[in-house]
Amino acid sequence: MKIAIAGAGAMGGRFGYMLGKAGMDVLLVDQWEPHIAAIREHGLQVNNDGVHETVQLPIYTPEELDSAQVEFDLVILFPKSLQLDGMLQAIRPILKSHTNVLCLLNGLGHETTVEKYVAKENIFIGCTMWTAGLEGPGKIKLLGGGNVVLQNLGEHSKQTALQIAELLSAANLKAAYSDHVIYEIYKKACANGATNAICTLLESNLTTFGNTSCAEAIVRTVVNEYAAVAAMEGVILEVEAITNFVKGAFDPAGIGRHYPSMYQDLILTNRRTEVDCINGIIEEKGKAYNISTPYCALITQLTHCKEDILGAS
Amino acid sequence: MKIAIAGAGAMGGRFGYMLGKAGMDVLLVDQWEPHIAAIREHGLQVNNDGVHETVQLPIYTPEELDSAQVEFDLVILFPKSLQLDGMLQAIRPILKSHTNVLCLLNGLGHETTVEKYVAKENIFIGCTMWTAGLEGPGKIKLLGGGNVVLQNLGEHSKQTALQIAELLSAANLKAAYSDHVIYEIYKKACANGATNAICTLLESNLTTFGNTSCAEAIVRTVVNEYAAVAAMEGVILEVEAITNFVKGAFDPAGIGRHYPSMYQDLILTNRRTEVDCINGIIEEKGKAYNISTPYCALITQLTHCKEDILGAS
Repeated sequence: MKIAIAGAGAMGGRFGYMLGKAGMDVLLVDQWEPHIAAIREHGLQVNNDGVHETVQLPIYTPEELDSAQVEFDLVILFPKSLQLDGMLQAIRPILKSHTNVLCLLNGLGHETTVEKYVAKENIFIGCTMWTAGLEGPGKIKLLGGGNVVLQNLGEHSKQTALQIAELLSAANLKAAYSDHVIYEIYKKACANGATNAICTLLESNLTTFGNTSCAEAIVRTVVNEYAAVAAMEGVILEVEAITNFVKGAFDPAGIGRHYPSMYQDLILTNRRTEVDCINGIIEEKGKAYNISTPYCALITQLTHCKEDILGAS
Repeated sequence: MKIAIAGAGAMGGRFGYMLGKAGMDVLLVDQWEPHIAAIREHGLQVNNDGVHETVQLPIYTPEELDSAQVEFDLVILFPKSLQLDGMLQAIRPILKSHTNVLCLLNGLGHETTVEKYVAKENIFIGCTMWTAGLEGPGKIKLLGGGNVVLQNLGEHSKQTALQIAELLSAANLKAAYSDHVIYEIYKKACANGATNAICTLLESNLTTFGNTSCAEAIVRTVVNEYAAVAAMEGVILEVEAITNFVKGAFDPAGIGRHYPSMYQDLILTNRRTEVDCINGIIEEKGKAYNISTPYCALITQLTHCKEDILGAS
């Protein structure tokens, strides 16, 4: 089984690292030159919960892969949300009729983008609670535990979905097939929607936000908005249970010390965030369903204000 | 006419400075020792739109005034909102039956606090668009123009209200009497509600926030919430007109370069903000009137989160 990780930043790096360590035939695809150069020279440098390790992983640009005529059984997509379409365009030549594509990106609605480039029967979607941070070119920082939940998008690919889950689990990624992955994606999206942009606005990690006097009230209101929108799509999110699930992310013994992805993008590397895919999309869906989602709306707006003020690119 | 400014920080300092310069008999009352010491030693140091000036003004603690048996015709209240009750308690001995009290604090509902200590006929309320910043003990920074609008709270004190307006105007404070000061207070509260806490969250001045892509949408939504609440109290706020009024504060040639009061409190001096009197009170009134005010609610919550994270006192 030949695996490519398309988008080898923080989370792509984690998956490449864990799959590579398990002896799988995995390579990284990325477009960021300093990152590629660093990994080629020194290997991928991993700070895994304080334990430092270096792993050798091949890394290529999409153009190099194309001219090398390499083929893959599985492509795992981990670009930034904003770059998903661009990444798919770039790796289009390696997406053959037998290439399965797994998308675990934060947020909702990515399958619409993937479907522009990949046949439905080859698409697998899901989400992950693993965290990862990029500390600089070639360097990633991993904290706490996680898991993966995934499902086939096409009707006839359940068997393949089960195999992909098994493959990931063999690398300790704790992947499970789910018959209702859209529920799992919404649940994960709630965790992101109620914490990711807010940690970015407050410039805090999850535990620090969680310890504030208003964290629980904010989380519950955001989860309520997600639940109202999800219900229109037949997904029932139980607000109290999901609120408690989200609050679990505040545990400093778990992923609480993690600075979420938008913080990394905006505060650490001055890039625009994926807030439109996390909170903005709930506002957008809310408008279509005639449901009020003011917390998601204001969170999206304030994040864009901060991007503008910091001159993010 | 003997005038005391109770709370001689940024805005109290401005009023003291302008009244003093106009030759009025004014003194400052404050409780912050380093500020008192600096003003006694060096005078009040004013950076007035880039022009530096020092004025000599007497400054006392409430206790000193009490033992000196000084009496005043007018007390102008400018403590921090959170300290209004405490300041009134402290100056209670100098509040005689003939002492008029003027309250121009940001936010809504302060008259309820003042009425605990002062007879209604002696209370005058209003608001001001003047800005002021405290740069350190004894040092204030003033930017741009402003005005004052005020009215008597008691039925029979209109004549006195007119005299107070005249007095302030003689010191170039551009004060006017208004028959509907509650409208003016709400209008000013909109400007604060839509910008003050947000500049604090984004750590920006008014112009910088105003230049972001989402500023206008945020302002309009907040103004809508104020208008819905105000309507329940018989105050009609025309949303488009008020939105444009608020946007006027973004003008860099006016007060746009000003960092609002909550920014000064939280970011510069690590003190808790008056957000409960600005946005929180709209949420509170909204609940009583069964009106939804989610933007004010989230703005209040996020500001409290930031206070908690910064360990504000």
